[in-house]
Amino acid sequence: MRPFFIMTKSELIHQIKSKESFLCIGLDTDIKKIPGFLLKEEDPIFEFNKIIIDQTADLCVAYKPNIAFYESLGSRGWDSLEKTLEYIPDEIFTIADAKRGDIGNTSGLYARAFFERLNFDSVTVAPYMGADSVTPFLEFSNKWIILLALTSNKGSFDFQHLPIEKTSEKLFEAVLKKSRKWGTDQNMMYVVGATQAEELKKIREIVPDHFLLVPGVGVQGGSLEEVSKHGMNPDCGLLVNSSRGIIYSSNDKNFGSAARKSAQIIRGSMKKYLDLYLK
Amino acid sequence: MRPFFIMTKSELIHQIKSKESFLCIGLDTDIKKIPGFLLKEEDPIFEFNKIIIDQTADLCVAYKPNIAFYESLGSRGWDSLEKTLEYIPDEIFTIADAKRGDIGNTSGLYARAFFERLNFDSVTVAPYMGADSVTPFLEFSNKWIILLALTSNKGSFDFQHLPIEKTSEKLFEAVLKKSRKWGTDQNMMYVVGATQAEELKKIREIVPDHFLLVPGVGVQGGSLEEVSKHGMNPDCGLLVNSSRGIIYSSNDKNFGSAARKSAQIIRGSMKKYLDLYLK
Repeated sequence: MRPFFIMTKSELIHQIKSKESFLCIGLDTDIKKIPGFLLKEEDPIFEFNKIIIDQTADLCVAYKPNIAFYESLGSRGWDSLEKTLEYIPDEIFTIADAKRGDIGNTSGLYARAFFERLNFDSVTVAPYMGADSVTPFLEFSNKWIILLALTSNKGSFDFQHLPIEKTSEKLFEAVLKKSRKWGTDQNMMYVVGATQAEELKKIREIVPDHFLLVPGVGVQGGSLEEVSKHGMNPDCGLLVNSSRGIIYSSNDKNFGSAARKSAQIIRGSMKKYLDLYLK
Repeated sequence: MRPFFIMTKSELIHQIKSKESFLCIGLDTDIKKIPGFLLKEEDPIFEFNKIIIDQTADLCVAYKPNIAFYESLGSRGWDSLEKTLEYIPDEIFTIADAKRGDIGNTSGLYARAFFERLNFDSVTVAPYMGADSVTPFLEFSNKWIILLALTSNKGSFDFQHLPIEKTSEKLFEAVLKKSRKWGTDQNMMYVVGATQAEELKKIREIVPDHFLLVPGVGVQGGSLEEVSKHGMNPDCGLLVNSSRGIIYSSNDKNFGSAARKSAQIIRGSMKKYLDLYLK
């Protein structure tokens, strides 16, 4: 548990500037993909995460466990998740990538699960059910929600790009405009997929000050340079996630140092883009 | 585990007709709300559910554990959920009310969690991320997804009712029209809140044959008669949920029989409406 450290926006900015990195590492830890020799450990998922964290904590500013991977293992998975979270150093921002959202009393319970039981700094939330499905998460002080705006997958074109009558703005713009009033840039961020970099300019007009969590660089094909160019604000304002591209760099005994090398390469580019594009 | 029983659409209809009930009971089991004397049990949540199930299994056709309530208890909650699911009789439809939805490989893992590890018949899914976030659930044979269309909460007016350019249909209608092609009425249902009964006619024009899961009767104020009148199709086509209105009927030793009485009252009305409105 990390009860005494508060991850404020200014603390996050401080971390980004001192580490010269806005890298978020996705802990999408799949029992079917981790190196075989770990399977003899009592908790292979945690052992894997522990080594990844040891090797990359100085290179990234956030870790994002994808909750589905833990949930698919039942109660054992929850134990691994709990241990992983406790192992992450205090000064690193933690994101429960859960994409929850339900009627008020239920969202309140999800908030309890991720903010109290597990002490995550933030949780990803889906907007479809509207304000009262999101605001219960915002009632927890010193915690963040990260609302889905424009996702990185092909299915984002099914509904998120639908044009709304009269305003002609797209659904994801309506989501941004309405939801930004529910909280502040001190307790809300947005998910914007790297594969949709051309929309980042428009998004920055609507939410100039909010942090954006950007998945989709790497395996999904998004460009880190495009994202940096169009998405960066004077605080940096970006957390760019890579999951599979880092954690599965090798399937061998050396998987930790291989992951470190992959993270170093991305962090190297980030350093460059911070120099180039941070206004 | 219930590996041999397959809950097909025709089996569900058979259950509804023979029990004269389309009642779904929501197992929103909150450790803070169950009778105090249960807290001395090793697994109070499961003990509560067991008694509710014993008292109501002949009156309902579905049980819907709300996953947030279990998740908020961590790994212990998952154990209670697993035991509850095993205790539910085979012929009763089971719904994991989880409102999940993520990029393809992640949705596949959520599907594994609820369909394989826990052997639920169905899971509720959120549509915002589009086709590839939903279809991984549909790859599991003999399983169902229940997609959010129009929810029962106030926040449903934030986005679900937004009119789409040119077609002038609302977002929830666009969701229905596009998503009905992703599966069939044999593996997809929709969530439609009872508080939005006036929209049910329109919804029945778009999805005449699909089952609808209807929350919002009872505490949330929806009318069972309105829902039955506008939502019933020749198969009944409805699962109407009540959670708090049944399971928290008493906070005493007699909470089981009190829950039974509440369920009997709703089932009595359902019997009447099946006679009146089943075409």
